Amino acid sequence: PNRRGCLRTLSRVIGVVTDNKKLLHAGKVGLALVLVSLLYMLEVIHDRLGDNAMWAVMTVVVVFEFTSGATISKGINRFIGTILGGGLGYLVALLAQQISGAGRVVAIGISLFIFGAAGTYTRMVPGVKKKYDYGVLIFILTFSLVAVSGVREDEIIKIASDRLWSICVGFAICLFISLFVFPVWAGNELHDSMAAKFDKLASSIEGCLEEHSNRNMDENMEKRTTDSFAGCLSVLTSKTTDGTLANFARWEPWHGRFGLNHPWNKYLQIGELLRQLATFVISFEVCLQSEKKVSAKYVVIAGINEHYETTCSLLAYTMRELGDRIYKMARYDQEGEAEAVTSKLRTLRSELCSQMPLSNGGETPSSLYVLAEIVDKVEEIVREVDKFGKTAGYTRK
Amino acid sequence: PNRRGCLRTLSRVIGVVTDNKKLLHAGKVGLALVLVSLLYMLEVIHDRLGDNAMWAVMTVVVVFEFTSGATISKGINRFIGTILGGGLGYLVALLAQQISGAGRVVAIGISLFIFGAAGTYTRMVPGVKKKYDYGVLIFILTFSLVAVSGVREDEIIKIASDRLWSICVGFAICLFISLFVFPVWAGNELHDSMAAKFDKLASSIEGCLEEHSNRNMDENMEKRTTDSFAGCLSVLTSKTTDGTLANFARWEPWHGRFGLNHPWNKYLQIGELLRQLATFVISFEVCLQSEKKVSAKYVVIAGINEHYETTCSLLAYTMRELGDRIYKMARYDQEGEAEAVTSKLRTLRSELCSQMPLSNGGETPSSLYVLAEIVDKVEEIVREVDKFGKTAGYTRK
Repeated sequence: PNRRGCLRTLSRVIGVVTDNKKLLHAGKVGLALVLVSLLYMLEVIHDRLGDNAMWAVMTVVVVFEFTSGATISKGINRFIGTILGGGLGYLVALLAQQISGAGRVVAIGISLFIFGAAGTYTRMVPGVKKKYDYGVLIFILTFSLVAVSGVREDEIIKIASDRLWSICVGFAICLFISLFVFPVWAGNELHDSMAAKFDKLASSIEGCLEEHSNRNMDENMEKRTTDSFAGCLSVLTSKTTDGTLANFARWEPWHGRFGLNHPWNKYLQIGELLRQLATFVISFEVCLQSEKKVSAKYVVIAGINEHYETTCSLLAYTMRELGDRIYKMARYDQEGEAEAVTSKLRTLRSELCSQMPLSNGGETPSSLYVLAEIVDKVEEIVREVDKFGKTAGYTRK
Repeated sequence: PNRRGCLRTLSRVIGVVTDNKKLLHAGKVGLALVLVSLLYMLEVIHDRLGDNAMWAVMTVVVVFEFTSGATISKGINRFIGTILGGGLGYLVALLAQQISGAGRVVAIGISLFIFGAAGTYTRMVPGVKKKYDYGVLIFILTFSLVAVSGVREDEIIKIASDRLWSICVGFAICLFISLFVFPVWAGNELHDSMAAKFDKLASSIEGCLEEHSNRNMDENMEKRTTDSFAGCLSVLTSKTTDGTLANFARWEPWHGRFGLNHPWNKYLQIGELLRQLATFVISFEVCLQSEKKVSAKYVVIAGINEHYETTCSLLAYTMRELGDRIYKMARYDQEGEAEAVTSKLRTLRSELCSQMPLSNGGETPSSLYVLAEIVDKVEEIVREVDKFGKTAGYTRK
């Protein structure tokens, strides 16, 4: 019975760890470290690689990242950077050995300056920075080490190949664990964060409506405004994170939910549309709140209150539905349903616009126009998401 | 004469390099690499440190960052991480040597797992991630290397101290170059980027006005909207960059324009206000554009056109003036001038509000309210910037 209690406690601990992605990642890094240190401590490997086995430990610590895609990208960057830097460094060391005396030191110094500076400049080029920053860093590092130690060592080739081998072993361990032990896929994170954005915007739109129906005014409007902006602002500032995740997702092999050719760049396009929508939603809220300040106007708004409510709830419903479908990786149930939704939105929009020129006494609040803009944007998003579902090969349920 | 031509070309090349911060940084890294490799290649040092001198090269490549603050922060993180990790690793290795046989390997494996996992988890804690991410990484790395090689090496203390020494030499070179050779201060970058934000917002406000005066409507409103949003959006998304720069700026010693106690956190506060202003400016633009869609309304707006123009140009002028003063590190010329500016803004605001309830035929565009919000926000910013100037000890010109 005591044994069973232990087992139960253990399984509960494992349950907690696997639920918490951060704890899980920490455990995976610990596991990788243990595996790689076993290699170092085992006689067989140590006899073969000597102290260069240290590079395997270093690789594990440095390359193991939170998502599988990031680990793969860093590992491949490190591998290629090491090979190129090592090869070039070896060439420089060989050439330098032809020169005798102080000339050799000068030649190596100059080559270090040139390749070090060129490499550092390359790292700052935006396209390289985004994808190959780490690879170029390792290139500079390996080049410097090999070129400099090439002056002294005769066994440079042996050392270099041992280190490369060692790096490969370290990378293989990282790769194995990050692909097969509770993998965290950058693709999944990107996918779920996009679905969550639809939910956030839907809640913001509903929030506007609530604010609108709730007529008591108060002074600290700014505070509440910034509070309810939170969802929109997080969508607005998500550009960098999305870009990084999409970059890592491209490195990931076929896995569970996504094929090799999953259209990751579509996520960035839809993200851009969602950011535009977020600016409109913020403007809508600001308009509503400023219109509230004059009660005279407010009475008039009450006249078209019903239209606001219908529109906002349809918009929020549509966005939530889209987020849900993206989350479940499904398209609309039937052929033409996307068109049905867009045409419903269009009808709504024209009903809204019919209110515009001749509402009671020439009074047309700006929020109405902004709301029409929001409807347009959501219509565009519906179409884009449907296209995305087609490209990604989602099925209709 | 040929010699003079050469000199002139050289000085022109140096001029181009020192003007371009990226080129300059690349050159500085190249220089640091040359210096550190000289150390390695010189007999004296190599005899003392052996192959551990390699760690100096590694430190230079990894620690040298674009701004001085980042270099200092990374170097200190690396130094402390190495000492703590090395010390703990040495303890573990010592204890493990008391155990014989397979038990030793198991003991080291377990300690690796515990400290590796704990360290990795710590890295993901937001507060640590922001400031000490690199230090903890180096802690894990050094701990693993020392604990693992402690099993085999008897000279572990000698090796560890040589490496530490070597890292110090590498860091000293980075520090010297990044502090004394054309330094790029994170503080300067943060300061100038804040001044630039004021300019961007001023231009956006002017842009709104221009859009407003320019009455021809066209269909692709969205495109233009997103174009003229660019300035506001870049302000909105600047939060992370500002945070990083402020973090690095705190590591920087007293230099040229800033004392040791320069209030770096004030930059983040003012940045927050500027981001709030940016959301209002975006809303203002959206309101203006939607109001334009109905010409009937437009005529009415023309009635208060003058007010818009006065307000927008005063706002833009105030913002530009503030940005300029921040850039020049000066406060307003006279005592009470900040109050004069805020009271001018308040007058303007009450003039605007007087238009609200009874403008021609009950017609009050939302943009008017949003503009009033903008005036409020700018007033708040004027006061904050004045407080900031007082804390930073700026003088009146």
